[in-house]
Amino acid sequence: MTRTAVIAGVGPGLGESLARRFVTEGCQVGLLARSANYLDGLSADLGEDALAVPTDVTKRAEVEAAFDAVREAFGPVDVLVNHASGGAWKGVTDITPAEFDDALAVSARGGLLCSQAALPDMLDGNGGTIIFTGATSAVRGRGGAAGFSAAKFAVRGLAESMARELGPRGVHVAHVVIDGQILPPGAGSNGLPRGRDEYLDPDEIAASYWHLVEQDESAWTLELDLRPHVEEF
Amino acid sequence: MTRTAVIAGVGPGLGESLARRFVTEGCQVGLLARSANYLDGLSADLGEDALAVPTDVTKRAEVEAAFDAVREAFGPVDVLVNHASGGAWKGVTDITPAEFDDALAVSARGGLLCSQAALPDMLDGNGGTIIFTGATSAVRGRGGAAGFSAAKFAVRGLAESMARELGPRGVHVAHVVIDGQILPPGAGSNGLPRGRDEYLDPDEIAASYWHLVEQDESAWTLELDLRPHVEEF
Amino acid sequence: MTRTAVIAGVGPGLGESLARRFVTEGCQVGLLARSANYLDGLSADLGEDALAVPTDVTKRAEVEAAFDAVREAFGPVDVLVNHASGGAWKGVTDITPAEFDDALAVSARGGLLCSQAALPDMLDGNGGTIIFTGATSAVRGRGGAAGFSAAKFAVRGLAESMARELGPRGVHVAHVVIDGQILPPGAGSNGLPRGRDEYLDPDEIAASYWHLVEQDESAWTLELDLRPHVEEF
Amino acid sequence: MTRTAVIAGVGPGLGESLARRFVTEGCQVGLLARSANYLDGLSADLGEDALAVPTDVTKRAEVEAAFDAVREAFGPVDVLVNHASGGAWKGVTDITPAEFDDALAVSARGGLLCSQAALPDMLDGNGGTIIFTGATSAVRGRGGAAGFSAAKFAVRGLAESMARELGPRGVHVAHVVIDGQILPPGAGSNGLPRGRDEYLDPDEIAASYWHLVEQDESAWTLELDLRPHVEEF
Repeated sequence: MTRTAVIAGVGPGLGESLARRFVTEGCQVGLLARSANYLDGLSADLGEDALAVPTDVTKRAEVEAAFDAVREAFGPVDVLVNHASGGAWKGVTDITPAEFDDALAVSARGGLLCSQAALPDMLDGNGGTIIFTGATSAVRGRGGAAGFSAAKFAVRGLAESMARELGPRGVHVAHVVIDGQILPPGAGSNGLPRGRDEYLDPDEIAASYWHLVEQDESAWTLELDLRPHVEEF
Repeated sequence: MTRTAVIAGVGPGLGESLARRFVTEGCQVGLLARSANYLDGLSADLGEDALAVPTDVTKRAEVEAAFDAVREAFGPVDVLVNHASGGAWKGVTDITPAEFDDALAVSARGGLLCSQAALPDMLDGNGGTIIFTGATSAVRGRGGAAGFSAAKFAVRGLAESMARELGPRGVHVAHVVIDGQILPPGAGSNGLPRGRDEYLDPDEIAASYWHLVEQDESAWTLELDLRPHVEEF
Repeated sequence: MTRTAVIAGVGPGLGESLARRFVTEGCQVGLLARSANYLDGLSADLGEDALAVPTDVTKRAEVEAAFDAVREAFGPVDVLVNHASGGAWKGVTDITPAEFDDALAVSARGGLLCSQAALPDMLDGNGGTIIFTGATSAVRGRGGAAGFSAAKFAVRGLAESMARELGPRGVHVAHVVIDGQILPPGAGSNGLPRGRDEYLDPDEIAASYWHLVEQDESAWTLELDLRPHVEEF
Repeated sequence: MTRTAVIAGVGPGLGESLARRFVTEGCQVGLLARSANYLDGLSADLGEDALAVPTDVTKRAEVEAAFDAVREAFGPVDVLVNHASGGAWKGVTDITPAEFDDALAVSARGGLLCSQAALPDMLDGNGGTIIFTGATSAVRGRGGAAGFSAAKFAVRGLAESMARELGPRGVHVAHVVIDGQILPPGAGSNGLPRGRDEYLDPDEIAASYWHLVEQDESAWTLELDLRPHVEEF
């Protein structure tokens, strides 16, 4: 089965691993991110099953245009990964209101806009899958990261609300709690500040995202966590 | 001990009960809300220990001016209740991005701005208490309430982050999960759509808020839930 | 209002602080624990409002006899604190099945037996309060403490089940998550391995237990957490 | 890769689906349950890759003998599913202490005993996977099911404790929250009290269990939930 997927907020690391895995599984993939340069390189590498669409996911018109472009190239959207994340890593005494707003806009508003752009396709009888990338700070507010915690919590609340609303209508919404650091792109086993087994391998994270896409509607997961086996938690 | 308290987002119902209880306990209370008319009536009723400060809590300059006014009238702020809440009760397929943003702005951004305005007083050696009013939708995203769920989750994430950052510095941050409907203002036992015991009495909620204010720093609560004894949950 | 309270698993530390606070608030208190010696000393100290009843809370007949003794001395039971806890602090590779069973028996079975002994009084139109003492390991299984974690989780599951069953019948069931170390009995500010502000003061914990007892049925708490303000969590 | 798996508490429904899936994936499977009759039929059906070992998982000697039998037939154990569950579905006012104990013994003690029997193989440099079958009542105590809730919570606490202890040693411990009713064995689309899409298909649940087994140690899941897409939750 060929699926059309959109990865919103793609970048080196997990976003890129998701794109590669999805293409390997037969998807055609729309790649949304701010940086046109990065996207062009990645889509060239992935070939004709990938489409680079430079997009600021916080801007409604840009998001709608991006989904139109993907739709035109590959057909209705079946899978959306809301992967964009941002915001200063600052505590309540340091963060500016603008930085706080920005964290919420990229993660929560961006997730809403992309979901709203994708849903007409999914609710048209075909169903679909929407996965939100979360973090430990989505389930446990982190001291010194007020904006990031608020934004990640907001995304989880949005995902849960959407799962309850959309599940009966055939759209699978899931939230993945990534607990730990992801292996930096291009990292060999040397040159890392910590041992390699202390990092999540983004290709292995992608395997669990793909499992969520493949789940039958009789047994859907709303949330799973992922961490390296040596992670203290 | 006389304390200066600010209730941000006061209104008939719980906000008003909090104001009355705090005054009864010897606090001087700054009342922040958008509606000047309502605030004037309430402050007149509460007497000289209350100050009405019409404020849009999503606007930084207004918030700072409001806290300055309270400080000038009553001295440094000891207690802040972030009680403002808003946003359309709509699902992901219906809510507009502007309505979604508004929900986040009132609850999360408003909570941040008020906290940042209060914290200089609290971190100046006196300590203090900041309580966020939460809801069931802060711990369980509700289908059909995408903006409200995202906003309430965001507030909880902010509260947890602040609690971890500020606890060691002497500021107690707490989050109250109110699970159920609060008795409407002026309701007698007749004229309610449900039996009176299905509602939370706002005066009784206020008793638990006051308990949080009074807790000794050796045994602080981050979160408690409150519901009527007959509530299904 | 005079209440009859039972503290099951009383000992130096929090159990004793609870007993003192409850007596101060006008309760007559039945003290249940295995050690007759300790109980005799404490009840002598507390005076005629306390009754020492040496009891193994894992034994049904002993528990029933203990509640009969309290009932005979002080009347129907209004408040029960299930405070007994036990079990080796060992991981899955070390703990013996007997140690594991023992942890579950003291905390979970003991909590059931005491609740079942108290409930006839509470369901007889008078209502009542049952508080379970929990720990961080009740919400987050601790590595190296397999039996303790299983037991503390079991207690929380029991408490939640009871809260949902008994709330509509007028019995308030609550679970307190104590996160951190309690100040050892008789500790001055010297001689502690950590700074005094790193410990929970048991008298202050008792203040929150008492608040739970006093809550009006329109706004009951199922769960609250307590920790020292400097605790990392 | 051929793996040796043990399913403790196998029965018609999910246990059987797990056994079939595991055999399909190349595992050799030890089947543990009380009923010899049922096990014989299932193992005959599965063929030479299945071994029926009638076992009461609450009895240490029986469990150890069962694992020895599996080990002798198929070699060291790589995968264990702790699937046994039991206990009367009764509230706190109805359940007998013996019924309560039984619920804890089958789920929690049984899970401990089987894990302790399997761990020597897994900690001997080969790693392994231990999956606990949970339920909604493991994360939300159910009114009217005091023993079941306590037992399911206990299992979750045990699983979390084990995950933290054993992860760094190469053993993956996971807990699956099954939220909803599983399709009864042999059910066609007729004759069900509810629509077929309101049930979890056990074969699809087994797909997620198998995904957990296959996860790379750089990205392990501790917990995931599974429910039919139409389930209200």
